[in-house]
Amino acid sequence: MVTELEIICVGNELLIGKTLNTNAQWMAKQATALGAAVKRITVVADDVNEIASAVREALKRKPRFIITTGGLGPTFDDKTLEGIAKALRRKLEVNQEALRMVREKYEAYVREQGAEKAELTPPRIKMATLPRKAKPIPNPVGTAPAALISLKETTLLALPGVPSEMEVIFRQTVEPLLKQSAGKSVFCERSIYVEGVMESNLAPLIDKVMRDNAGVYVKSHPKGRESMPRIELHFSIAADEAEKSNEKLQRAISQLSSDLAKIGGKVSVDELS
Amino acid sequence: MVTELEIICVGNELLIGKTLNTNAQWMAKQATALGAAVKRITVVADDVNEIASAVREALKRKPRFIITTGGLGPTFDDKTLEGIAKALRRKLEVNQEALRMVREKYEAYVREQGAEKAELTPPRIKMATLPRKAKPIPNPVGTAPAALISLKETTLLALPGVPSEMEVIFRQTVEPLLKQSAGKSVFCERSIYVEGVMESNLAPLIDKVMRDNAGVYVKSHPKGRESMPRIELHFSIAADEAEKSNEKLQRAISQLSSDLAKIGGKVSVDELS
Repeated sequence: MVTELEIICVGNELLIGKTLNTNAQWMAKQATALGAAVKRITVVADDVNEIASAVREALKRKPRFIITTGGLGPTFDDKTLEGIAKALRRKLEVNQEALRMVREKYEAYVREQGAEKAELTPPRIKMATLPRKAKPIPNPVGTAPAALISLKETTLLALPGVPSEMEVIFRQTVEPLLKQSAGKSVFCERSIYVEGVMESNLAPLIDKVMRDNAGVYVKSHPKGRESMPRIELHFSIAADEAEKSNEKLQRAISQLSSDLAKIGGKVSVDELS
Repeated sequence: MVTELEIICVGNELLIGKTLNTNAQWMAKQATALGAAVKRITVVADDVNEIASAVREALKRKPRFIITTGGLGPTFDDKTLEGIAKALRRKLEVNQEALRMVREKYEAYVREQGAEKAELTPPRIKMATLPRKAKPIPNPVGTAPAALISLKETTLLALPGVPSEMEVIFRQTVEPLLKQSAGKSVFCERSIYVEGVMESNLAPLIDKVMRDNAGVYVKSHPKGRESMPRIELHFSIAADEAEKSNEKLQRAISQLSSDLAKIGGKVSVDELS
């Protein structure tokens, strides 16, 4: 069975176009490479109700994993855990393990800097305040712990929004979970490029190649104009065996390349300039 | 009343992490600058049911506008209009005005290239097949027309996914609609940068500045580490008068800058290296 996954990105900066959503792309790429299928990416504001409804809606679709990023920090607008608690109708409470993680961070900062007090102020305690029964996940590069919540059908993971923090926690904690769930599933992909064939004339050839090569998905990405076409053809397959999948991909590529040559297409394995 | 907007991006390439979602950022930035509020960005696969449910869910939230990008082309996986038709329970039908637009494009390509026939093949007719009562919008740079559907509370706009096509149609068709709806609403923003204050110590200062300057939203974006902090403070306000809004923003910036200096923060108006 396919390991389905949804990503929820929390942050006004994404909705006002201040920040490019590189986190979503990074996570989607990793998860896909690990054999999981990203079904949806949702971006919502730093707002408890918005976060809660996005989480609730995602849970209804029963993906195996939901990963949130952003909104775990110490300021008023870090509301992801509150939103998740609301979606799950769980209380927020100070998690002692998370509090220990946060305290150790500030003690280390004091040793590093000298000047700063390690006092557990309300904004710092906030970072250790999790929905009931959440498991805190250590943050090796930042301060706020991430959190894992196991539900009946879905594992919910709340990761920070700072890319360096998100990435290391993904590698350490999310990757093994996805691997275990995806098992032998693999995702193989390759692109070829064609010049001189309009996308509308490509369409029936793609249909045929997909009919003849079950499991292979071919998507055309126009890079030029319809009248001066330069098109990337992206071949992908999600399956259980890497070797067989690559063979299938190669067969589909050969077939389409030869069909394209017949109607005057100039095919290349490298991106055309 | 705020002009609310949702963006729905259609494309497997976004869900496998192949493509960075620059379209969403570009549209969010433009819409925000025009005084509209982007409430949600949703990314779904090239799948009729996925597209239909994303559209249906967005419609339930009653935004003034829903803009989709991607999935208007001639190939089998261009399914956005089919998904929208399904969400609205409308039939798909060949739109004569859209067909004329598509035909003229191919006639022009024939004149330009000589070799190609302008024949209206099924993949080309597909690009002119719209949900009932949709209004086709000319595509000045590409082939597939965009589409506009007026519903009771929401205007639905389906734009292409190729950035150059999406952008020009946004400027020509979407921008005037947003402007008209947003009226005098403006969005003002500015950032300052601070070194030497931990984000957890910033939190209460931000709370105070926001309490004292109603309407101003301050969000901290950590760029360094909590122990070696370098933080961007982004001030924004969405309101009806540009001049007053900028004054408010400036007052909030002055207040926070002076509060930060008191606790040893090094404040700068330029991004710190």
